[in-house]
Amino acid sequence: MGESVNLSVEALKGRVETIFRKAGLSQDHASTLAAVIVAGERDGCKSHGVYRIEGCLRTVKAGKVVPDVKPVLRDDGSAVVRVEAGGGYSCAGFELGAPVLAERAKKLGIAALVINDCTHFSALWPEVERLAALGVAAIAMCPSYATVAPSGGKEPLLGTNPFAFGWPRVDPAQPYVFDFATSVAARGEIELYRREGRQLPEGWAVDSEGRPTTDPEAALAGAMLPFGGHKGSAISTMIELLAGTMIGDFTSSEALDFLGTTTLAPRHGELIIAMSPQRFAAGRPGDPFARAEVLLEAIAGQGARLPSQRRFAARKRTLSEGITLTAAEAAQLDRLEALGLDAVA
Amino acid sequence: MGESVNLSVEALKGRVETIFRKAGLSQDHASTLAAVIVAGERDGCKSHGVYRIEGCLRTVKAGKVVPDVKPVLRDDGSAVVRVEAGGGYSCAGFELGAPVLAERAKKLGIAALVINDCTHFSALWPEVERLAALGVAAIAMCPSYATVAPSGGKEPLLGTNPFAFGWPRVDPAQPYVFDFATSVAARGEIELYRREGRQLPEGWAVDSEGRPTTDPEAALAGAMLPFGGHKGSAISTMIELLAGTMIGDFTSSEALDFLGTTTLAPRHGELIIAMSPQRFAAGRPGDPFARAEVLLEAIAGQGARLPSQRRFAARKRTLSEGITLTAAEAAQLDRLEALGLDAVA
Repeated sequence: MGESVNLSVEALKGRVETIFRKAGLSQDHASTLAAVIVAGERDGCKSHGVYRIEGCLRTVKAGKVVPDVKPVLRDDGSAVVRVEAGGGYSCAGFELGAPVLAERAKKLGIAALVINDCTHFSALWPEVERLAALGVAAIAMCPSYATVAPSGGKEPLLGTNPFAFGWPRVDPAQPYVFDFATSVAARGEIELYRREGRQLPEGWAVDSEGRPTTDPEAALAGAMLPFGGHKGSAISTMIELLAGTMIGDFTSSEALDFLGTTTLAPRHGELIIAMSPQRFAAGRPGDPFARAEVLLEAIAGQGARLPSQRRFAARKRTLSEGITLTAAEAAQLDRLEALGLDAVA
Repeated sequence: MGESVNLSVEALKGRVETIFRKAGLSQDHASTLAAVIVAGERDGCKSHGVYRIEGCLRTVKAGKVVPDVKPVLRDDGSAVVRVEAGGGYSCAGFELGAPVLAERAKKLGIAALVINDCTHFSALWPEVERLAALGVAAIAMCPSYATVAPSGGKEPLLGTNPFAFGWPRVDPAQPYVFDFATSVAARGEIELYRREGRQLPEGWAVDSEGRPTTDPEAALAGAMLPFGGHKGSAISTMIELLAGTMIGDFTSSEALDFLGTTTLAPRHGELIIAMSPQRFAAGRPGDPFARAEVLLEAIAGQGARLPSQRRFAARKRTLSEGITLTAAEAAQLDRLEALGLDAVA
């Protein structure tokens, strides 16, 4: 066994990029994918860090993502900016569309970015953070795979459907950002309980008959549940409608049919809505950003944690002290670098 | 005591309208307010029915709403349509802005309606239903009063902040519509538990020290909690930011400061985002409305209830059989009709 390794954010990004280039991804895809994976490590989100590289490569090897397609921007000057990802990873498409989306929101007040036919694996917070840095508030959402039953139901139909929001704060290093699954838990968490032989907390899942269960095996054979009962279920359904059928892309059920497995990165679309606070607040009393600070400070001031604060603290630390990979993570990185696609099943 | 009374939807609307006219509301306000109150009765939502008339009149009598102001539309051709409600009830402002919003969403793909300086008391579902009838999907949200603590906090800061969504279905009489408070429960529900001497379910509220409580007295002295833990809290905060500070209007905390009580209808603004599925789906495979039916039928098909189905069933019944008011409700209606503003404190 080796030892843990410390790398600068830039150095890690270079290594991850090299792995993707060797696997046949174009420079654009390799670089944008590496950026979000390293952002995960930088922010202490191991679940979206180097751990994800293998899944990306597996999806390439399975022929379920186009590794070198050039995303195409379709802009008719309206409030809907579209990127055709052509079956490639979503990150390059987002980077292409994000500045146009922000510019359009500033011009018209509100605008939307649609990414179609993309393969998705990243969290949504890097995207709403990027838009907050461009000065706009943003809501992002996408379907995933059918693993969640609607509230009151018993069969997997909805995805874990993430919902994210970003608001530019006066300190640009700490935007108000949240990003969460609309399921109570992630499938991987249930898998973890199963391996450890532990019972699930109540309310996480139903068995294949739709009965509440705390047995991980029964849960995996059944379905996960949305957060917040019928309210979370309704939001998850809204995400299927808006970021699935409305944008002419897969619902979570269709995405699972397309792939036939939840072990590869899912193909679907994404919807991002951006709004310009300056435009919305124009002619009204008070500065929207300054007034937002009063609200957010009142939340923190009563001891409630603002979302993403843990990430920002980790980021501050890793930017000065570097990212520490465990011996196993470092070995995995070496292996992927040496073997490329041959390293994955 | 009298007896229960059966009235047609139109007849009840006429009576409610008369009450508002006598209380000094302009025809426009009287008619739009009566429409949403009667919609509540028609759909079996007693909590938004004739019960609400008195609160509306109390707010007029307290001088906290302008009963005859004409809402003004400000439209610069961009994706943000604005209505200045001038301190009047929101319903007339919404009616003025809704067709322009739908037209703009169809033209640009996505658009927003801002209603500023309005006094709000109605549910949001009549609004997203109206927009669904105009062929657009819509998200509506607004702050309310500070009665909810952020997750992890202990002081009332957020409102019960409703979040609503509408999607036009193939059967125009049954759009996909949800509308819920982002708090676990409404303040009135806690008051009901107190009167009945019952303990609250867990997770509804905290006491003034931020400790979870099931004691209604302690809850009323403390704060309600958002639904779904930190996720619901984040959504509620998003609503404060977007439909409060971003649109240059009151947050829930500022709304409470302005009124000094939760017994009058709150002054604040509202944000409604509308999207044209036809525009978003243009050039993509499949019809978005037909594809949505597949999803929604799969939800209903596994025994999960779609939101608003109970309302639609009640509506079908009352439209043919009329609305039945209890003896107490009928007496209250007579009293308000006879005494006008003198009937309220």
